Amino acid sequence: MTEIQQDVPEVVVARLPQYLRTLTQLIDQGMQVISSQQLGEQLQVTPAQIRKDLSYFGRFGKQGRGYSIAHLVDRLRHILALDHDWTVAVVGIGRLGRAIINYPGFGPEGFRVTCAFDADPALVGQKAGGLTIHPLSQIRDVLEQKQVKIAIVAVPAANAQEVIDQLVMSGIKAILNYAPFAAQTPADVQVRSIDPVLALQSMTYYVQAPG
Amino acid sequence: MTEIQQDVPEVVVARLPQYLRTLTQLIDQGMQVISSQQLGEQLQVTPAQIRKDLSYFGRFGKQGRGYSIAHLVDRLRHILALDHDWTVAVVGIGRLGRAIINYPGFGPEGFRVTCAFDADPALVGQKAGGLTIHPLSQIRDVLEQKQVKIAIVAVPAANAQEVIDQLVMSGIKAILNYAPFAAQTPADVQVRSIDPVLALQSMTYYVQAPG
Repeated sequence: MTEIQQDVPEVVVARLPQYLRTLTQLIDQGMQVISSQQLGEQLQVTPAQIRKDLSYFGRFGKQGRGYSIAHLVDRLRHILALDHDWTVAVVGIGRLGRAIINYPGFGPEGFRVTCAFDADPALVGQKAGGLTIHPLSQIRDVLEQKQVKIAIVAVPAANAQEVIDQLVMSGIKAILNYAPFAAQTPADVQVRSIDPVLALQSMTYYVQAPG
Repeated sequence: MTEIQQDVPEVVVARLPQYLRTLTQLIDQGMQVISSQQLGEQLQVTPAQIRKDLSYFGRFGKQGRGYSIAHLVDRLRHILALDHDWTVAVVGIGRLGRAIINYPGFGPEGFRVTCAFDADPALVGQKAGGLTIHPLSQIRDVLEQKQVKIAIVAVPAANAQEVIDQLVMSGIKAILNYAPFAAQTPADVQVRSIDPVLALQSMTYYVQAPG
């Protein structure tokens, strides 16, 4: 387990998975060594930014020799605590929740959905992607028993804060929120929102012409 | 049309839609005036950050009086060019693409999906959410004719760069990318990726315990 460096800016941590994604693609393409210059071109950030980001976590290569991609991938996976699997809970088993449970991209990256919850009594006890759907009232018991620390919220915006409060009380430390609303959590609980409208709205500023 | 301030950091622009989302929620709750202190608590950023972010775009309120929420919402919508509708193209009409076309959250925010494309000849000519599916070979003609500037990419990762290149050549300036890969575009084309794996990987660093 990596020791958390408290002084690493959140934006740096958020960039590391993108470095990892790109480096993994390069390995698939047969590359073995890369300079920060080349990596910067791939990632569309400056080489100085890459060197600075990595420097928070120690030394990664010798000046002028470039990085061993495989080594960099290993180190990044270790820093991000991705060198072991994570179990994940999904709350809200509507169309979106089912798509999330069946999403083929999670497994290969070490994220395994192991429990499912919904408020609808008609769904409780049914199966979704091989998982039995539990009622919300069992969130705490099931998550504590299974030591789950990550949850995905796919409930309507109107119910989302209530569900998130319950997850926080059940020991969840990281929430991937699909509900289009601004979630409130304690400082020690991470939240990332998957929100296509916010993403579109962060680009229109740059386009600025009716389309 | 707002004049683009070239010196505004991208992270600031990316926060404005979140401010807008939260302020809109507060209006729905009946609030009319808010201090940067209160807004900071809602958004979990410091009041100083909010004041600094807004200061890039001029004066928004009088010291000590708080912001008129309705006024702030209007200004933010204008700055982000959200005071008119945007037409959007979707490329890749599989399960994900269809869900995107039918997503009820876009319309109320002024994003209207007006054209659909897919590489599969079996899909071309069929309908998805009321739209006729066009072949990829028509991307340029259709987008130029309809003056579309925003596209959503929901094709497999293996085909995504090729599709994105075609969109860029067709005048697209903003791309919402659902394919799990690092897209390459010219500097004047914005890309945001919807990528649940990257979002999860940016949180595990903080949890750092097998779950």
